[in-house]
Formats: sequence, structure tokens, C-alpha cells
Amino acid sequence: MSNDASTPSDDITDPATDSSGTAGGGPEGIDGSTGQVVEQVDQVAESIQQDEGPTRGTLRDVADSLGISSAVALRALRGTDDIRPQMATRVREAAERLHFPLEELADEDSHHGVVAVLVNTMRNTWISDLVRAIRIELTATGRSAVVVPTRRRVPEYPVAADTEAIESLVRVGVDGFLMISDLADMDSVLEATGDRPFAGIGCSREFVGRFDTVRIDDEVGQGLLVDHLVGLGHTEIAHVGGVGAEVARERAEGFRKAMERHGLAETARVEPGDFTEQVGHTAGSMLLRGSKVPTAITCANDLTAIGVLSAAREAGYEVPEQLAVAGYGNTSLAASGIAQLTSVDPNSDRLGALAAQFLVDRVSGHEGPARDVAVAPSIVVRRSSSAGPRPAQERRKRISVD
Amino acid sequence: MSNDASTPSDDITDPATDSSGTAGGGPEGIDGSTGQVVEQVDQVAESIQQDEGPTRGTLRDVADSLGISSAVALRALRGTDDIRPQMATRVREAAERLHFPLEELADEDSHHGVVAVLVNTMRNTWISDLVRAIRIELTATGRSAVVVPTRRRVPEYPVAADTEAIESLVRVGVDGFLMISDLADMDSVLEATGDRPFAGIGCSREFVGRFDTVRIDDEVGQGLLVDHLVGLGHTEIAHVGGVGAEVARERAEGFRKAMERHGLAETARVEPGDFTEQVGHTAGSMLLRGSKVPTAITCANDLTAIGVLSAAREAGYEVPEQLAVAGYGNTSLAASGIAQLTSVDPNSDRLGALAAQFLVDRVSGHEGPARDVAVAPSIVVRRSSSAGPRPAQERRKRISVD
Repeated sequence: MSNDASTPSDDITDPATDSSGTAGGGPEGIDGSTGQVVEQVDQVAESIQQDEGPTRGTLRDVADSLGISSAVALRALRGTDDIRPQMATRVREAAERLHFPLEELADEDSHHGVVAVLVNTMRNTWISDLVRAIRIELTATGRSAVVVPTRRRVPEYPVAADTEAIESLVRVGVDGFLMISDLADMDSVLEATGDRPFAGIGCSREFVGRFDTVRIDDEVGQGLLVDHLVGLGHTEIAHVGGVGAEVARERAEGFRKAMERHGLAETARVEPGDFTEQVGHTAGSMLLRGSKVPTAITCANDLTAIGVLSAAREAGYEVPEQLAVAGYGNTSLAASGIAQLTSVDPNSDRLGALAAQFLVDRVSGHEGPARDVAVAPSIVVRRSSSAGPRPAQERRKRISVD
Repeated sequence: MSNDASTPSDDITDPATDSSGTAGGGPEGIDGSTGQVVEQVDQVAESIQQDEGPTRGTLRDVADSLGISSAVALRALRGTDDIRPQMATRVREAAERLHFPLEELADEDSHHGVVAVLVNTMRNTWISDLVRAIRIELTATGRSAVVVPTRRRVPEYPVAADTEAIESLVRVGVDGFLMISDLADMDSVLEATGDRPFAGIGCSREFVGRFDTVRIDDEVGQGLLVDHLVGLGHTEIAHVGGVGAEVARERAEGFRKAMERHGLAETARVEPGDFTEQVGHTAGSMLLRGSKVPTAITCANDLTAIGVLSAAREAGYEVPEQLAVAGYGNTSLAASGIAQLTSVDPNSDRLGALAAQFLVDRVSGHEGPARDVAVAPSIVVRRSSSAGPRPAQERRKRISVD
């Protein structure tokens, strides 16, 4: 629990220099063999051009294009003594080719401001993936990131925003705000941030045009999941999600569209679920106790899928032989050996880094209209969905769970 | 994954007002029946006097003593109009009786500073439990909290501290720093924080006397685990941990002492493990493949225990029938339906709140010597350790895992 000095998860580093293994954080499972990246964009440059927004590379893109770490790429761009001139030239050329914003690069000794990353909850480990990407990109511009939980409950309102925290940060003079997901009570949040630069990451479509947004293309994400399951022979597929937040509704809509595309609109079923394990468990139990039990279930996020896995165990369904389950987010929870959960990888490196670049732009005075980028996710197939549908008349094997 | 608006985990709230269930965050499992608090202090006042440090109650203690939420307790202390005078008097009397620092109470409209919470990693959900407690206590004094990941890797050094982030926060004028666990490169961290107030939470004994410390009493924690397992008949008990950080060494030492106390020093075995799932998996595999396989395994934290659970599954050991496993930290991972992990609950509410009080003291000019409190943990027994040792000659049932 405490002092997890060896967890490589959210260091400012990247796999190229990280010798301590994936530790459940990467797309691969514990033993490096259970994970399989199904949709993986080969060319960095190509992936950038797929985005609908401006074509721009992140520090990580520059590093990946040369097979070096982002720490080395940054030192090369800064012209640090320990980097050979030839390497420095190659990195700078790559940065120009990939449209990395060199004009924002800061010297190692130049310390600029602090960026506040507003989150609903710190419980979800997805946050740490994004914050790591944000920190790497901000470091190049001489900035740091702090994370601010913004949700609180007060007796009168079920959910309210901690605007005092945001106002305090405006007062101490943070450069700007990044928001992860839609926050509770957005009107109060935006009022509290005043005229400070503001950008959204993984937020819903409803904020497109109001501020810079870097979203997950959920239609692609749910589409990849449904394609994968249909490819295994599944037709009776349910989705747990769709309620509690606009992002959940968009994700459920992506599921429905993908089912329609496969001519499966009639068997597509959405069981209401928010983003918690508890509600995932309840929804999973409902689906498994019905007269028409689906053979596969996709979920609004990984926590929900963990709840469904738990419900499946209680109801005596073996995963994946009798029920395929998939999550969304590719968090460390999905990669965990006890979950081995197929999940949509939202490309958090790009989501976080691009939003950080947009924000720094605004801090530097960029005044164009609000930009919107929908980053294409991929899916990581693990054990939880590695089987086709159970035979129609198969008798469920019930397992005692106490 | 994103927009988890319904996860109650790290809101500023508490169970008394939280109607949305435990969602894996409380001591109880998904269905509210799998968890059982073994050691639970009955009287709030009594628990406070058990601490070796100053006798002082937190806002949560005041609220708990009257069966109200901490939000209502705070409004009562502030004399908000919506609280009946009689209630306001009762709350104030409780606050005085429990030595809650009323002198630091701020009006609802008074906004003071920002406190920075320094962490190694945001991957561990224990952080969110502590930050929630810190925020509740700081709110009473008109302050907010921001969380600062401080670890980074650079090519030359395996682990370094992000001192730029800390220096930026000193520059913008944060009130002070709270540290969760020992951080990497502590000398640089302390140098960067300069003369700002600084307090440690869940850190190792080596910082006692250097700054205010609110630690977990790991000897009590490991003792409770060993007592529980010995009570079930286990004698061949191993511990995975002891390396990578001073806290891990202290926890392993607590395990050894508890085994000695039961006359089991000879069968006490420590398999080196840090705080990651990956290393927990490796250590678990080592233990289960040896000639003398333990019947129970305690771990340095919950993530390590998840790795051991995963290794047990691969090696064909059923948990808990053939192997009992216990974690440490009582994180949401332990409470998850797919883990149902017995774990030591470090009393994060008290750890976080007390450290916040100490820090606010210092911000207000308190200049006494560094204080140290070791908070007594409890254990939460779940399914993973709910069976005695397997029969000596039992043939292991091997389960195919792919």
C-alpha cells in the first residue's frame, strides 16, 4: 500500500527506459503473454493524421519515431551536453517533421508555471495514466502539474464542485486548468476558473466548441469491441452503462451503432450502469438472472466490468467459457492477473499530451476558436473475452461461493 | 473509466450522508456481507487516547461521536443558519471534549491557502482514501489540497524526485506539504520544500523527529493478521515484502515479531517483494513452487497480494481452501468482488486528518518539537483468508488456466 517506490506506473518515464517491467500497467498482462494488441497503429505519423484536429506530434511521438525515450528526446531538443550533436539534429528534425511545438520548449533551468488537473475522483487509476502523459509534455515547457479532486457532497446537494479549491488555485496563479472527464457541476467549475485557459480530456461532446477538447472516439472504441465479439461468434451482446454521465450515454450509443452495423440491433441490449463496480455488479446480476442471458457483455469502464465479473462468479458463469466480458479504459485493473480483462485502450499518452499542448498554446496567448480532437482508441484482448458463445442449451455450472 | 460521477470514494463526505453505497470502498464487500471488522475500536474517545501522540480529535471524530456527517458537524461549528442552536451547542461541546482544534476553524467565506500532498505514484488507490480525509479536515480551516506526483526517472538515475514541481509550488506560495509514504530521493525533496511546514503520513520510522509524522503501527497491523491466521490453525505462514522501501522492511519486521510471539519463528518466512503486483506474482510463484509450501501468505500491501492471488490461480491453488492470502491497506482493490481480500485497514481517515491538523498547526506558527503518532490499524476479514490450513497430504488440484 504505502511507499510503492517500485511501481513504474506514473513516473515521468516511458517504456523505452523503464527496466522494471509492466507491473500491470502496460497493454500486456503479468507474464507478458496474455495481452494482445489487436488494433495497433503502426506509424506514429499516420496515427497523428488520423486525428480530426490539428496535425501535431507530442514529445512521446518524437521519441517513439526514433526509438528513444522521451527523457532523451527532451535532452536532445534542449541541446544538453551529454547528447551527441548528430542525435540532437535527428531529434530536432523529427520534432519539426511531426509538428512538435518547438516554440514552447523551455531550458532545463527555466521554471514556468503550474497547471492544475481537475478530476472527479482519484479512485480510478486511469487518472494516473493521463497525469503521467500530461507531466511529460508539460516538463518540456518548464511546467509542472498538480491534481485537484473537485467533487464533494454537501447535505443539500447530492454532488457539488469544490469551487473553493479552484478559486484558491486561480488566486495563487496557476497557468490554467485541464479537466479529466466531465466534472460534476460544470457551470460552477467554469465560473470559478474565470478566464484562465481551460481544456477538457476524455469529456463528452457537449463541451466541443466551448473550450479545447481532446476526446476518446467512443464510437470507434465500442465498434472495435463489438467487431471482436462478433468475430468470435457472439450475437447476444449486452452493454452495461449509459447512465449517470453524458460520456456513458455516448459510449452506449456507440455500442448500439456497432450492433446495428452488424445487423444485431434487435439483440443489442443496454442494462443501466454508471461507472462504479457496485452498479456493474447489480447490472451484471440482472442480466445473468434474466430469461435471455447474453453471451457477451461490454461495459462503460473497467470498474463496471469488474463488477460484472464478480456477478458472473456468483451466478456460476465461467469467464470466458460461458460469458465473455470486456471493459473500457485499459487501466491497471484490466491488466491485473486476477481480472485479465479485455479492454479498450483510449491512448492516454496522446490524450494527455495533446491536451497539455493545447493548454500551453492558450497560456502563450493563442486565441483561435476552440479545437476538438477525437483520438482513436485500440483494443487489448485478454482472457476475459477469449472464447466464443456458450452452446445454446448448456446447463450452467453452479459454483458455491461461500 | 472516465466520468465516474457516481463513485463515492473520494468525495468530501462520509458514510453517514453517503447514500450511494460502499462501491468497494468501505470495509464491506459488494453485497455488504462478506466483510467483517475484527478489531474495531468502539469508542472514538478511547481510540484517540490509544495514540501515543497528542490527544486530539478530528472533524470526523466529532461527527462520529454524535452520529452525524462531518459536513453537518462543520456547519454546526460554523454556526450556519440551517443548524438548530441546540445541535450547534452539542457539536461544539463534543469538539471541545475531543480536543478538536477550534482555533483553526475558518468561516465558510474565508479562503486560506493550498496544501500540497506529495505522492510517489497515483496508481495506488490508498492515496484517494487519504486525500479525502485530508480534504475534509483542511476544509474546516478554509484550505484546499492539491496532489503532486513527485517521482520521475531520468536516464542517469533510476529514481529521482521532481523537485521542479515542488519548487514551483513553493514559489506560488502553498501553505505547506504533506507527504504520503517515504518519497524517492527524500533529501532533494526536503531541500526543495525549504522552510515550509512539512508532515509525513504512513512514512517509515526513520523520519520520526525530523518533522511531524503520523504513521501506521505496522507491528500491530501484522500482529493482527498473524493472530487471525494462527487462530484458524495456520502455522506455516509466509510474508511477501521487506524490500524496496523502509516501510516494507518495517512491515516484514512486524510479521517476524508476531510469528515469534506465537512461537513460530522457525516457520516464519519472508519472500522478497516490493509494492507491485508483478513482484507479488513472482514471489507468490516462488513460494508455491517450493518443496515447503506455506498455507497462508501475508503481504506488504494489497497490490502485492493481488499478485499472489494471481500466482495461486496459475499454480492451481484454490483460495482460501488451499491457501489463505492477506493484503495490507484495505484499498478498494481488496474490497473488490473479484479479490475479496482480507486486509489491514490503516485507518486512513485518522491518518490523513491528524497529519492535516499537524500541518495547519505549523502554518499557524506552532514551533514545538516534531510530533509522532502511530495510529492503530484494524483488520477486515474477507473470503481470501476464511479457511484454515489445507490437510498436509492434500494433492493440489491443478486447474488449467488457458
